[in-house]
Amino acid sequence: MKSGSRPTLAFALGDAAGIGSELTAKVAADEGVLNVARIILIGDRRQFDQGKQQAGLSLDVPDWHPGSEQEIALLDRKNIDADSVVSGKGDAKTGAAALDNFAAAVRICAGGGANAVCFTPFNKNSMRQASSTYVDEIGFIQRVLRTDASGAEFNVLDEMWNARVTSHVPLRKVAGLLNTDLIQQRIMLTEKTIRDAEGITPRIAVAALNPHAGDGGNFGHEDDEIIAPAVRLAADSGIDVQGPIPSDTVYLRAMKGEFDVVLSMYHDQGQIAMKLIGFDRGVTLIAGFPFWIATPAHGTAYDIAGKGIANSGATKNALLLAAKLALRSGANAPDPDKQHELMALEMEKMS
Amino acid sequence: MKSGSRPTLAFALGDAAGIGSELTAKVAADEGVLNVARIILIGDRRQFDQGKQQAGLSLDVPDWHPGSEQEIALLDRKNIDADSVVSGKGDAKTGAAALDNFAAAVRICAGGGANAVCFTPFNKNSMRQASSTYVDEIGFIQRVLRTDASGAEFNVLDEMWNARVTSHVPLRKVAGLLNTDLIQQRIMLTEKTIRDAEGITPRIAVAALNPHAGDGGNFGHEDDEIIAPAVRLAADSGIDVQGPIPSDTVYLRAMKGEFDVVLSMYHDQGQIAMKLIGFDRGVTLIAGFPFWIATPAHGTAYDIAGKGIANSGATKNALLLAAKLALRSGANAPDPDKQHELMALEMEKMS
Repeated sequence: MKSGSRPTLAFALGDAAGIGSELTAKVAADEGVLNVARIILIGDRRQFDQGKQQAGLSLDVPDWHPGSEQEIALLDRKNIDADSVVSGKGDAKTGAAALDNFAAAVRICAGGGANAVCFTPFNKNSMRQASSTYVDEIGFIQRVLRTDASGAEFNVLDEMWNARVTSHVPLRKVAGLLNTDLIQQRIMLTEKTIRDAEGITPRIAVAALNPHAGDGGNFGHEDDEIIAPAVRLAADSGIDVQGPIPSDTVYLRAMKGEFDVVLSMYHDQGQIAMKLIGFDRGVTLIAGFPFWIATPAHGTAYDIAGKGIANSGATKNALLLAAKLALRSGANAPDPDKQHELMALEMEKMS
Repeated sequence: MKSGSRPTLAFALGDAAGIGSELTAKVAADEGVLNVARIILIGDRRQFDQGKQQAGLSLDVPDWHPGSEQEIALLDRKNIDADSVVSGKGDAKTGAAALDNFAAAVRICAGGGANAVCFTPFNKNSMRQASSTYVDEIGFIQRVLRTDASGAEFNVLDEMWNARVTSHVPLRKVAGLLNTDLIQQRIMLTEKTIRDAEGITPRIAVAALNPHAGDGGNFGHEDDEIIAPAVRLAADSGIDVQGPIPSDTVYLRAMKGEFDVVLSMYHDQGQIAMKLIGFDRGVTLIAGFPFWIATPAHGTAYDIAGKGIANSGATKNALLLAAKLALRSGANAPDPDKQHELMALEMEKMS
């Protein structure tokens, strides 16, 4: 895509019982977003209209149609009756619609009809009610794309990144899942991802597993025996990496600008830090597939759903980041005929 | 102690290779501290003088002497030659001096010669070089006091508290150490400690162990099977307690004022949060003994030791908190004769 042009983002509406519809309306009305990207909203028009009502916004977004270069358009999936949705109470219906929107966005992007995927928050329980085999976004994307490419989640907050070695697993299992090979691989994936995304050689900090990085073996051996060797191997290969650094100071140091990214050993280690630093701004980014996928780091926020008070900052940041990364990755602007074909295909899939 | 009077704090100088001597000089010169407490500094005068030099301060602190009501005085332990100390390099000497100062402070306080203990940061490695059986402060206090009373550490930051169920153990062992009885006991100890300290009925949040609080069992069962029952039992007994709450949001909610305290399941869970929220202000408080013990939550900071740039905010907060708690707990002002006797005893112990 030539510099200065605007990438096209396939934007899937998430769980209709959460704050996602309201967030969609808010970013769809945001010139700061429309100035940098074209948006194809993917979801039921009734859900989008409900979001506008919740947000107190009266903007017009036309149906997507072939041949024009619309700033923003909606691919009406006709997959959920908004009147049947109770704010704060997701169910199999809201889960099924979110899955359907997400799958369509992924297919359209994979086919070249858009340059990156964004989505508003999903609710795992709703999705599992709709599809008992649903585990997480990465597994779902793999299934939709029929690929075994391994994706990885990153959190991005302003200029600070967070990656993790393990994610949605019981804390009890974390230590047993770590090994030097895996951590070295994650350091290298982190390096490559941020280099591609930001065009920099990232300064990587690796978080320790145990309190005080194991305190010389008094509080656990994994830091010295598993993590430190991985860091040395990665550093020997030319990567700018330090660690293991005690996790109660490493995020603070990164926040102050000493590192570009922290590689966390487990989910909450990184999430506690990133959400404290910027709950309303953080973006979750999925890398490892042929296109970037970005979403706000927060969840469906059922407790404030439908009230019009949701902060759309993180969703806006997800769109801006996806647009920036799509531009930088040099993806081609969607071919209009190809895009038409893909969209027609998606329309046919509904019945 | 009658309201408005000033409690006496036994203030032990910590590791001489760290920032503690500088911090001691800075708080000894702080009228905001001296207005609310009398201070007995416990350590080598040469170490204190080194701290003054590092801090660029020229205050005079006299030797402690019986019978007068000194604002601040020093009990010269004559236990370390400051000229032999290399900033940033603790060793058996700095560890031994810190242990000696701490033991004296604890004994003086236990004997009624002071109302609370404070200390500047220790270095565990130095202390272990000096005493191979040293594990942590709580075990050391138990040994000095010849008690099996079980102490517990809290972190206090402004009005927000953090308690924890497990602390200096490998992450691998955390899940196996949790059980409903233990968590219920910790909730009750937390309730009692904050009620005594702050005179309030604390609103307690219990952090979840697993990501997304286990996500209904998908990411671990401890939250549903161990933590939730403990919270129910405690709530049934009249305690204001909620949980388990996912740890990537619970500290944020507490920080915003929704809870007075979070009970963490493991060391870094709470420490990541508390240090991000206020690294330069946080205080570690040890409860469970007949008097309060307070210290800055940060460590010896060897990387900046001797440079005069250490922030004394947390040390000041430790002194202010100890003074407040000593006042509130209604401890008696030290009896001058008794104090004299105790101090004489401590002088004799050096030889």
